Amino acid sequence: MANFYFDEATGLSLDFNGLQKPLDLAANAELLQKAQANMQALEGGAIANPDEQRMVGHYWLRAPQLAPTPEICQEIEQVQAAIWQFAEQVHSGRILGCTGQPFRNVLVVGIGGSSLGPVFVSEALQSPTDRLRLFFIDNTDPDGMDMVLGRLEAELAQTLVIVISKSGGTVETQNGLVEVRSFFAKHDLNFFANAVRVTQKGSPFDTAPDADKWLASFPMWDWVGGRTSVLSAVGLLPLALQGVDCRQLLAGAAKCDELSRQPAAQNPALLLALAWHSLSGGQGGTSMAVLPYKDRLQLFAKYLQQLIMESIGKEFDLAGRKVRQGLAVFGNKGSSDQHSYVQQLVAGPENVFVTFIEVLRDRANTIHQPIVRDESTSGDYLQAFMLGTSKALRDHGKNSFIITVRDVNPFNVGMLIALFERAVGFYASFVGINAYHQPAVEFGKKAAGEIIALKNRLLAEMSKQPGVFQPADFWAEQTAADPALVWHLLRHLAANGDAAVKTQAVLEFAGVER
Amino acid sequence: MANFYFDEATGLSLDFNGLQKPLDLAANAELLQKAQANMQALEGGAIANPDEQRMVGHYWLRAPQLAPTPEICQEIEQVQAAIWQFAEQVHSGRILGCTGQPFRNVLVVGIGGSSLGPVFVSEALQSPTDRLRLFFIDNTDPDGMDMVLGRLEAELAQTLVIVISKSGGTVETQNGLVEVRSFFAKHDLNFFANAVRVTQKGSPFDTAPDADKWLASFPMWDWVGGRTSVLSAVGLLPLALQGVDCRQLLAGAAKCDELSRQPAAQNPALLLALAWHSLSGGQGGTSMAVLPYKDRLQLFAKYLQQLIMESIGKEFDLAGRKVRQGLAVFGNKGSSDQHSYVQQLVAGPENVFVTFIEVLRDRANTIHQPIVRDESTSGDYLQAFMLGTSKALRDHGKNSFIITVRDVNPFNVGMLIALFERAVGFYASFVGINAYHQPAVEFGKKAAGEIIALKNRLLAEMSKQPGVFQPADFWAEQTAADPALVWHLLRHLAANGDAAVKTQAVLEFAGVER
Repeated sequence: MANFYFDEATGLSLDFNGLQKPLDLAANAELLQKAQANMQALEGGAIANPDEQRMVGHYWLRAPQLAPTPEICQEIEQVQAAIWQFAEQVHSGRILGCTGQPFRNVLVVGIGGSSLGPVFVSEALQSPTDRLRLFFIDNTDPDGMDMVLGRLEAELAQTLVIVISKSGGTVETQNGLVEVRSFFAKHDLNFFANAVRVTQKGSPFDTAPDADKWLASFPMWDWVGGRTSVLSAVGLLPLALQGVDCRQLLAGAAKCDELSRQPAAQNPALLLALAWHSLSGGQGGTSMAVLPYKDRLQLFAKYLQQLIMESIGKEFDLAGRKVRQGLAVFGNKGSSDQHSYVQQLVAGPENVFVTFIEVLRDRANTIHQPIVRDESTSGDYLQAFMLGTSKALRDHGKNSFIITVRDVNPFNVGMLIALFERAVGFYASFVGINAYHQPAVEFGKKAAGEIIALKNRLLAEMSKQPGVFQPADFWAEQTAADPALVWHLLRHLAANGDAAVKTQAVLEFAGVER
Repeated sequence: MANFYFDEATGLSLDFNGLQKPLDLAANAELLQKAQANMQALEGGAIANPDEQRMVGHYWLRAPQLAPTPEICQEIEQVQAAIWQFAEQVHSGRILGCTGQPFRNVLVVGIGGSSLGPVFVSEALQSPTDRLRLFFIDNTDPDGMDMVLGRLEAELAQTLVIVISKSGGTVETQNGLVEVRSFFAKHDLNFFANAVRVTQKGSPFDTAPDADKWLASFPMWDWVGGRTSVLSAVGLLPLALQGVDCRQLLAGAAKCDELSRQPAAQNPALLLALAWHSLSGGQGGTSMAVLPYKDRLQLFAKYLQQLIMESIGKEFDLAGRKVRQGLAVFGNKGSSDQHSYVQQLVAGPENVFVTFIEVLRDRANTIHQPIVRDESTSGDYLQAFMLGTSKALRDHGKNSFIITVRDVNPFNVGMLIALFERAVGFYASFVGINAYHQPAVEFGKKAAGEIIALKNRLLAEMSKQPGVFQPADFWAEQTAADPALVWHLLRHLAANGDAAVKTQAVLEFAGVER
């Protein structure tokens, strides 16, 4: 029985009072011990990602002395020192943009793990005193890139571009790089004088011919996975440039790591993982809604979607059995979401539980707050809505628990990141899966490559038969392809000004009922 | 069998080729007829929301001539004309802010249905030529309000405030109103000279003593629900001020309504609802991931979370049977989400399907696009990733379908809004629930009121015993309340500078394991 966790020093608490059944540590002692042993081995440098034969070392990033070799420890410390120095030189104007002006903006080009962490922390810790403003290109949507670049156009010379790709082969990021470079070229500005890259040593991106032209380069490591890379150069570089106290961010994560090496009853991450496990029955098919009652933390659920779903959503377990594991994550913020989908959480299906994130401090200025009604502040109501929703869920047979931090500051954001990273690791041990690979991500990428090839075959075929005016089915036959695919490809090409397609293709096909 | 829907005139298409089993219209003929009959009755003015004894009239907003009475038809047309005129007068400078300067910003204060629709459409249709910039306060988070007001501080006199609450009793919105008013007062600016309200005639907000002070007022109607109010004054007013062509927004919705009054095989909304029904088995517990492959549509899933989950997430059906219906919705955008949770969608549990939203046109300038690689543009890859992910899902036994529009413009956004509004209505008929009430939303609100009362009792109790230094358990006993609740309340009060609590409460309690 453990319904409450509270660490007085940090103020971190977990309140499991909203569970229909209290957590049972005794009944799960074996499971808990196994998970702790696995975590200890992982932190010691074991090959915790067997499929990829990799160590899993993101915990070393905030405690380099724990790294399995002195070389790794030294590398971490050197890279962090280099990041602090680079940020300081940009802030002080010792490093200037391509036209000799100080930098005002940072444009991060990266996707998935190279964007979700930095964008979450950047928004959570934003302040009017930020040194530089962060922007993100995290997709291969041309219109989306045009929107971001349009906002930066007037200050492009004062925009530092950080291109992030661990593997160096991420197509969306490579496309973003080409688009941003051509935008700089269009404005006769020297891209490389404003451009920094973060990638793994030896990656195609690292060894590219223009490798020496970049303003600076920072390494990623084989032993840091994308979804746990926010405390590597991936997150630290843009956040340090923004003006975030990254040392506190690291300290908070390190502190939560320490707390989560304690025995079960005093181990917040292990208790969190146990709650997930008892609520999901260790099976897939359960969803978790994450509701931070704090606007700044609005992107936390989006960040957790990747951390949790990409780690736990697996077809096979470590023994090779088909298990179709998963834990779906969604959510935005309270109390806004109470006016959205909480109706379903309370009244609807059983296969969902809620994680509330509570922040005790309401606002920077706690002295002069308007009393909005009934001797209460807006913040009193924010808390009351959270506690009230927790009660409504419990009364309707649903489960929820509350994670509380004192304030949204770098230390506490670091704690929250570590808390969920470790809970994911523990949960993966409970259900016996590899939390550190993502094989299914490749399937869509591979299929996309085949579709690009089909598009090129299609255009070649049409150019061989100029003036031929035929529906998609015909061109599908010519290219031995799925007519529905060809239909989508032709419509897309025509909509984007391909004259040949416009004149030669009928933008429908026999599959459509008349 | 109906695997494709295509309307050549609008370019709207639905591709169900990604389903493991094709849609079977014949087998569901009865279900489809019942749903169409219910929709016809609803559009004719039936009491489609029996619990609240209300008509459901959002379809009249874009086709006033369909309204059941000439009075309603006239009211809709008059309000729209008043909105167009008000926006024109603000744009032309005939209406100025409290200091005689033209308006530059709009601050919308509203939550749930009074914010999710406007914010989605505003972002989807944003353009560098927007007439005014929109900002939103959609919560009772003091820090969140401070962040928004801080951004507006320098231009506060040129900020038009729109306060939206249909019932006039929404606590978060009332709190936002108090905070924004006090911020104007702090800057010696006349709030009411800059403030417009949208509420239902006769609501507490409408009949408040300061009713006559507002710059303008626009009505909401009893027969428009919050989650379907984006095409009422709730959405039209801020969007018209932004510079969105609202007539096209309405025209697109009206057009999709027409298409969705056709026989099943030619009825996009009915086919969509049938797909949901065959994929969920008409039961709760299934999730739908919504992936628009277009950055502008990033908030669509968040908008649909409310529209769908608040409508379909119900404990009882119309016959009073406990059914725990629901359809969970989450998603952000492709291809970014492929680097996040798509790993789980492909490899994980079976109880999820995917709705892809495809936009054919890649960017405003389709002439000069960089070729990023392999004779292809960034947009070619965006489409290829969508089609590739669809294939990966199908190959792994998962279901998905593709909704395609030509471009993101007001007409097509109107079509998408109507498409899902009607699909929700049809689905509700399939499973026999009331899609137009949200009883469970009240439970959390009611409990929140009790918690505010407990907080006040607690403070009164502590002031009666000054200097008494005791843990939460003691004060819980004094107020006959749940110690865990009291613990949260005391910690929150102490963190926000309540001296009494700081001196009298020990911020932990016996429930915590030592």
